[in-house]
Amino acid sequence: MAEQPQTVTPSGIITLLTDFGLSDPYVGMMKGVILTINPKARVVDITHQVGTGAVLQASRIVSEAHAFFPDGTVHVAVVDPGVGSGRRLIALEAGRHLFVGPDNGLFWPVIYSLKATRIVELTERRFFLHSVTHTFHGRDVFAPVAAHLSLGVEVMGMGKPLSDPTPLQSPVPFRRDDSLVGQIVQVDHFGNLVTNISAAELVLFLGTGRPEVQVGRLNVVGLHRIYADVEEGRPLALINSSNLLEIAVNLGRASAYAGLEPGEIVGSVVTVTRI
Amino acid sequence: MAEQPQTVTPSGIITLLTDFGLSDPYVGMMKGVILTINPKARVVDITHQVGTGAVLQASRIVSEAHAFFPDGTVHVAVVDPGVGSGRRLIALEAGRHLFVGPDNGLFWPVIYSLKATRIVELTERRFFLHSVTHTFHGRDVFAPVAAHLSLGVEVMGMGKPLSDPTPLQSPVPFRRDDSLVGQIVQVDHFGNLVTNISAAELVLFLGTGRPEVQVGRLNVVGLHRIYADVEEGRPLALINSSNLLEIAVNLGRASAYAGLEPGEIVGSVVTVTRI
Amino acid sequence: MAEQPQTVTPSGIITLLTDFGLSDPYVGMMKGVILTINPKARVVDITHQVGTGAVLQASRIVSEAHAFFPDGTVHVAVVDPGVGSGRRLIALEAGRHLFVGPDNGLFWPVIYSLKATRIVELTERRFFLHSVTHTFHGRDVFAPVAAHLSLGVEVMGMGKPLSDPTPLQSPVPFRRDDSLVGQIVQVDHFGNLVTNISAAELVLFLGTGRPEVQVGRLNVVGLHRIYADVEEGRPLALINSSNLLEIAVNLGRASAYAGLEPGEIVGSVVTVTRI
Repeated sequence: MAEQPQTVTPSGIITLLTDFGLSDPYVGMMKGVILTINPKARVVDITHQVGTGAVLQASRIVSEAHAFFPDGTVHVAVVDPGVGSGRRLIALEAGRHLFVGPDNGLFWPVIYSLKATRIVELTERRFFLHSVTHTFHGRDVFAPVAAHLSLGVEVMGMGKPLSDPTPLQSPVPFRRDDSLVGQIVQVDHFGNLVTNISAAELVLFLGTGRPEVQVGRLNVVGLHRIYADVEEGRPLALINSSNLLEIAVNLGRASAYAGLEPGEIVGSVVTVTRI
Repeated sequence: MAEQPQTVTPSGIITLLTDFGLSDPYVGMMKGVILTINPKARVVDITHQVGTGAVLQASRIVSEAHAFFPDGTVHVAVVDPGVGSGRRLIALEAGRHLFVGPDNGLFWPVIYSLKATRIVELTERRFFLHSVTHTFHGRDVFAPVAAHLSLGVEVMGMGKPLSDPTPLQSPVPFRRDDSLVGQIVQVDHFGNLVTNISAAELVLFLGTGRPEVQVGRLNVVGLHRIYADVEEGRPLALINSSNLLEIAVNLGRASAYAGLEPGEIVGSVVTVTRI
Repeated sequence: MAEQPQTVTPSGIITLLTDFGLSDPYVGMMKGVILTINPKARVVDITHQVGTGAVLQASRIVSEAHAFFPDGTVHVAVVDPGVGSGRRLIALEAGRHLFVGPDNGLFWPVIYSLKATRIVELTERRFFLHSVTHTFHGRDVFAPVAAHLSLGVEVMGMGKPLSDPTPLQSPVPFRRDDSLVGQIVQVDHFGNLVTNISAAELVLFLGTGRPEVQVGRLNVVGLHRIYADVEEGRPLALINSSNLLEIAVNLGRASAYAGLEPGEIVGSVVTVTRI
């Protein structure tokens, strides 16, 4: 008989990640709904400035950021271009954390890497707002469900078990001839170019060699430890705080130096060769 | 003898709505003042990116957003182009919520629709910061007053009763020939065009007919339920989560498709005809 | 024998000031680290939109904003272009507040003006995250140290005493011929031009005279009390809520009227003459 996994105790913390921006009252309304149901909840913003509809970007953030919170934290993520359409609404438990949002691949990295088995389609309407609009499930469904989870309501009691969560296609680095080929997956606030090449993959590829990293018109030899290891205005490659290969410019914006169109930087090819 | 309305019990939550932006420390200072007076207060940002001096926009947000918070929540709203001038500073109770800010029409929709009768001009300086500057009443007056209200100090004890709150002119839809004529009142983060035409008004106008909605060079026939009801890049009209007629573009920005100057979209005429 | 200063009791509040922006999950991760160590901590954002690497701007904000919080508040400030390089990591107590961040001059104004003597270089790694990256000390060092301080761990137990904190060069107003010459040190969200000339310095310079203030092509005679003292679109000079001379335009943006390049406004010369 399969052992029933033990339910995690709620931490009382709820994190919010959306593409709603900060100029409308949408996020504030979600917090009002949460605090009406659980007045003791602690709500923490991850970011509300994910690109509109950028499910892949949001999935990377959820997958990395949740681990810095205590066990039993509820993570709400709403990047949901198909709001109101056939896509399912889900809640799940993975790695002793709880997650709530649309079933559009956003949670695939946590489901896959943490081997989540406790996933439900949200069907128990008593945990929703009394009136559910067609276009704001963040406020009307996900916020109240998260509040109830933070009070200790069981995930599996929120709906019916779901065994086929929607997967997410995510670009993975590959080898071509003598190169390791990756992609830029994020440009951060500082203009740093974050790739999808992990430190482990890079080490495996390099062996005892040194890397030459090329993206757009930036070409960098060697791997540095910190930004200040090179002179002001000079590019460098390093392993960043997410354990990913990153191309940066000390005290400058690599995104401006790369000679790539702003709209095309994410997705640009990064080529690593061994020298 | 008129019955004295019963005072609402504070929820301990204080919401903040301003046009201060997020790059200066102004909002942080307000929170410091609040927590110094009431260390247990929970402060929630509604938005700080209301257009500079946009009292009408702020009044709409306060009027809608407050209702998603528990009874007894204190709502501070500071969009106050006349700071330091003759305009009065007020606090009021309406619909079991408390409100604090300038008397410039910002609270007119809640006063009017919730029939507020407990309104005071803030004159009791013992509830202000010791030193009140001429240009930052958000920090020096409204934040400390809100903190005291959240601790249970009575609204009516904050100053002298005020019976003539400043009204706010707000554009209302009207009929012309065979059309219903409204305005764009908000462009949200997604570029959706929100009108001042409510679902109820629209239904009354349409009867059994279908609408044709026109704004700028966008022309939409029929009413859809959700964004994904039309193909990517196609415009549509729907009733949004605020129960207002909205013109949107699925996975696109209606504000960019409408052929209107960015600065002139809010206020643009929306015409609905029956087909 | 010198008397050991008494340690301040923590307020449980931690403020955050960074140049990280709000589009990445960096600030959210810091909050997760804090709440994992001290689940009862109250975290307040001061701003995360300080200019990249703008240590001087951050130092002014820390120096002014901290005083609006209760005694015993921990203020984390991370504007740290030299992250991972030789610069030291510090914590200190000043004016009954606690401060944590890089030793790059950011805390010089509080150290200097509040005569801080309890300063340590952070060397006790048991208060850091288990794994410290080279490029994100905000998350891996400053956040956990702040959380431990908010729980009552003694500053002096965090590392070794430091007696030579890095000073910060800050432009000060000076007299030239019959003028008082200052600088624009900040352009706020409203486009107001904040100078480094304090009310006290101005009064001392003016005596019984009136000022004529000039910056770029703006020329203002006299000192007003509030923005609404002049007509819409007219410039004025006033003493702002930080007690500094400020040039503004009523219901307009002085930064746009001054005829200065956006990138060159901060640092522009402000000249005051007596008339």
